[in-house]
Amino acid sequence: MHRYRTHTCGQLRDSHAGETVRLSGWVHRVRDHGGVLFIDLRDHYGITQVVADPDSPAFKTAEELRAEWCIKIDGVVKRRTPETINANLATGAVEVFAEGIEVLGAAKELPLPVFGEPDYPEDTRLKYRFLDLRRESLHANIVKRSQIITAMRRGMGDAGFTEYTTPILTASSPEGARDFLVPSRIHPGKFFALPQAPQQYKQLLMVAGFDRYFQVAPCFRDEDPRADRLPGEFYQLDLEMSFVTQEDVWATMTPIMTSVFEQFADGKPVTKDWPRIPYDTAIRKYGSDKPDLRNPIEMQAVTEHFAGSGFKVFARMIEADPKAEVWAIPAKGGGSRAFCDRMNGWAQQQGQPGLGYIFWRTEAGALEGAGPVAKNIGEERTDAIRTQLGLGEGDAVFFVAGDPRKFYKFAGEARTRVGTDLNLVDTERYELCWIVDFPLYEWDEETKALDFAHNPFSMPQGGLEALTTQDPLTIKAFQYDAVCNGFEIASGSIRNQSPETMVKAFELVGLSRADVEERFGGLYRAFQYGAPPHGGAAFGIDRVVMLLCGAQNLREITLFPMNQQAQDLLMGAPNDPTTKQLRELHIRLNLPN
Amino acid sequence: MHRYRTHTCGQLRDSHAGETVRLSGWVHRVRDHGGVLFIDLRDHYGITQVVADPDSPAFKTAEELRAEWCIKIDGVVKRRTPETINANLATGAVEVFAEGIEVLGAAKELPLPVFGEPDYPEDTRLKYRFLDLRRESLHANIVKRSQIITAMRRGMGDAGFTEYTTPILTASSPEGARDFLVPSRIHPGKFFALPQAPQQYKQLLMVAGFDRYFQVAPCFRDEDPRADRLPGEFYQLDLEMSFVTQEDVWATMTPIMTSVFEQFADGKPVTKDWPRIPYDTAIRKYGSDKPDLRNPIEMQAVTEHFAGSGFKVFARMIEADPKAEVWAIPAKGGGSRAFCDRMNGWAQQQGQPGLGYIFWRTEAGALEGAGPVAKNIGEERTDAIRTQLGLGEGDAVFFVAGDPRKFYKFAGEARTRVGTDLNLVDTERYELCWIVDFPLYEWDEETKALDFAHNPFSMPQGGLEALTTQDPLTIKAFQYDAVCNGFEIASGSIRNQSPETMVKAFELVGLSRADVEERFGGLYRAFQYGAPPHGGAAFGIDRVVMLLCGAQNLREITLFPMNQQAQDLLMGAPNDPTTKQLRELHIRLNLPN
Repeated sequence: MHRYRTHTCGQLRDSHAGETVRLSGWVHRVRDHGGVLFIDLRDHYGITQVVADPDSPAFKTAEELRAEWCIKIDGVVKRRTPETINANLATGAVEVFAEGIEVLGAAKELPLPVFGEPDYPEDTRLKYRFLDLRRESLHANIVKRSQIITAMRRGMGDAGFTEYTTPILTASSPEGARDFLVPSRIHPGKFFALPQAPQQYKQLLMVAGFDRYFQVAPCFRDEDPRADRLPGEFYQLDLEMSFVTQEDVWATMTPIMTSVFEQFADGKPVTKDWPRIPYDTAIRKYGSDKPDLRNPIEMQAVTEHFAGSGFKVFARMIEADPKAEVWAIPAKGGGSRAFCDRMNGWAQQQGQPGLGYIFWRTEAGALEGAGPVAKNIGEERTDAIRTQLGLGEGDAVFFVAGDPRKFYKFAGEARTRVGTDLNLVDTERYELCWIVDFPLYEWDEETKALDFAHNPFSMPQGGLEALTTQDPLTIKAFQYDAVCNGFEIASGSIRNQSPETMVKAFELVGLSRADVEERFGGLYRAFQYGAPPHGGAAFGIDRVVMLLCGAQNLREITLFPMNQQAQDLLMGAPNDPTTKQLRELHIRLNLPN
Repeated sequence: MHRYRTHTCGQLRDSHAGETVRLSGWVHRVRDHGGVLFIDLRDHYGITQVVADPDSPAFKTAEELRAEWCIKIDGVVKRRTPETINANLATGAVEVFAEGIEVLGAAKELPLPVFGEPDYPEDTRLKYRFLDLRRESLHANIVKRSQIITAMRRGMGDAGFTEYTTPILTASSPEGARDFLVPSRIHPGKFFALPQAPQQYKQLLMVAGFDRYFQVAPCFRDEDPRADRLPGEFYQLDLEMSFVTQEDVWATMTPIMTSVFEQFADGKPVTKDWPRIPYDTAIRKYGSDKPDLRNPIEMQAVTEHFAGSGFKVFARMIEADPKAEVWAIPAKGGGSRAFCDRMNGWAQQQGQPGLGYIFWRTEAGALEGAGPVAKNIGEERTDAIRTQLGLGEGDAVFFVAGDPRKFYKFAGEARTRVGTDLNLVDTERYELCWIVDFPLYEWDEETKALDFAHNPFSMPQGGLEALTTQDPLTIKAFQYDAVCNGFEIASGSIRNQSPETMVKAFELVGLSRADVEERFGGLYRAFQYGAPPHGGAAFGIDRVVMLLCGAQNLREITLFPMNQQAQDLLMGAPNDPTTKQLRELHIRLNLPN
């Protein structure tokens, strides 16, 4: 017989009845039923009920057991009586009558219980993470995370990608977020940086001729902790392909990611044919480049119906500014004054002057548009709006007006609010899409200068010619995001692999050829030696896992997370360096007073 | 037709003859045969021969092409004439007659050529790594490395292991090598460390109930570069199992790793049933705990034959020191004075006084042991030695004498030398074994103190009782290595998961309970809360890949290695931090004068 177990705690069925078995695991719970002890024995694979009779030689030890002790039991499998069968447990048809118990590892009084999963302070849970991880829900999330990553790897492999690992000790990269630095011992005063992403390495791999790269890549950004961002490290499914257009990237990744979602969606519907929505359309329809498509509401411009109308606030706006528009947020089933007033109140809480609306009711047998806006613009315009939006009795519409660049975010939030409040959002599904044709540049109001809207490595649509002839703010990039249920889950682009186009693209944001050489030397050099057209994307693994686990908090899907103060309470990191370490690294501390 | 290619450069066969195709890739080589240009077009998948006739519209562009330009060609597939078929090329039955060529990425004059793989200075190759990686042999190694890791992952998954990723930003660990440190921005004066190995995390995972863990784990040690060690990071196949004995670890990992070796051994034989050799036996038979079992030589003690013999040097040694032994290195086929003298000379170069020997020859029809040793000990003892070792005419034996602890390394080197020089080593095979029963402690001659021989986390054989009753130097650990062809490829142990045994084990090397708590706080704490028996191992991925690629240099199996001065010449790391970065990290430089 094996020293520790013949079966796992998830394995025994009624076909094992009569067998002498050995199990090892943790005491999940002990119950005393009239002098007979029932021990729920738990391991990675499941739970088995162990019975210790007062006349069993194991009873004396059984009486001493406490929750979370690690034990080994020898015993005989017996069928449960029909009325005691537990259908919720894979091993629920049997119980094991203990004949011997060995304590493998006792436990002191627990700082937090495992059974029942009660709420406990975050810091206690992190300090005793090895106990917290025994909780069924967290354990299941962590296993699911591993399975999701394995499924991603399999999908990428099946699609002809090869996983290449890129360096973790690398150079500080000037774009993007703040780097973690690592002092060099051998080169005094010099520092390595941990990669924010393997962006340059994966592009170098393409120049080196490796065609289809992917990596489950650790990435590092030294940013201040936020609720939706753990300090330190995160993982992305990073990929790059040579000799492709953006259509190839979408056509390759859509089925892979759809399959990953389907494997872990617990039967919820998953979009198979991801719509490709141009950035401008997404902003106009959803007020966001991360639209939640589970919300069926699509906004429309209704500017013409307000131009020259009796609703003077809007009419004057339209007259004064050619950029001004009025957007309508249709609200099916929102046709009551109470709901419209509630939305109006919410808008005011958001710092808006209010939210104009019309709602439709039947008054004296006739359909009537109600509310102040309807009164001001009159019956004909009210009905034209209703017809354009396909609304009817019991529906409403809300209006947002002004310069769309300034109000679209608020309009998007109002759309979300309406959808959620009216229960229009089907939360039991995964709605995926590509947002495409992002602008290459944006105007930075703070610095009053042009800047890259997303990725400086993206190829401008129209190439060098667009850069030299077009208004920069009208240039689109071959740049795209993948979005699921309102969250960005990936970002990617076709890269600008032409040295001249690269230099020109940077020139427009005020950087010289010398700057490019200094900041992106390796990549810029590589582009001079036969660079292939290439592009790719990076999927945020943590976000995908959160969506598929239905987790609200990154700590529920991360094995050993830091706390919100960027500390690892379990291992005690960060901690004090020794004087010898500092001397070897040629640094000294420079502490704030 | 696709924008860049209808087929890869490794895909066309004679069944494609007549088809119009599009290929993209790099100009591997251009040859001019009587005015017709032959272009070897190369991509990740292979090479295809492209022909540009002087009357082709593509001819003008073809004439401008230089090596390593990235191009796209349109053309028609034609069967080669029988005499021009290239059987060494997968696409060797066809060639593509170019009708159009588009330059996708031109190349400046190359700092190092790709075709022909000539020797080039290391630093040039690293600075232009994206070109160096286009070399066929390096490209193949890198792809093979990825495939080996994929095979490892598959093997582990099939055996019920789950891959869990452990943190990269963690705490400095006081045992082992030097850590890389990462200053914390949020906690002035505190530092994270990069993990030397996920040892403590994987043990915590077992305490947390995760049963079978593995990880392709990046590890970091800030050690001085050596020929057989790249600066910075390396990878290990890290694994841990709960409720196991060491037999389980061996039984699990032997078939997985055998299969990995067999998949990539190019048909060379691989040991299926790895012998388990106790450490003491390995030292006595092979003079090494990393024996190359391709070398058939096994040493034997022949002390008794020298005790009281006429070979006074050895006889006196044996008389004076009860620890003294004489070991014999049998050398089948080494029976010539020339060879024995060469070995003797080699030993003197190694700083030894010389290497005693006997060789056997037939003199006047009778077998005779020749050489000074044989003369001194006489015929009877000479023949007893010959019989014990199973030697005969044309064979030799070499002797090493003294305290085995002091000479075993040299004896092992002599064994290697004999085996190599006599061509006894079959280099076309992979010989694998487990070395088991390592000592728990060793005596450190420098500090004159007891120290852990390998891993302080290993369980002593005999447990707490052995620690309290035995001479520490006689205690074995449940500690083992895997060895292939003379290289350690893995190390592992059953862990000491009992808090009291752990404290006692550390006490013997002079560390108190408080020291243990301070240095291994997370793990020590975890062991108080129901720790399961567990054990595992870590396989050195770089070493396994080197063996399977037949590579002599780590840079030949690493994608973006640093140079021997610990610099990344491609990305320019390490580099200068900005003043702002240093200020944010609360450090200043402390440069040597």
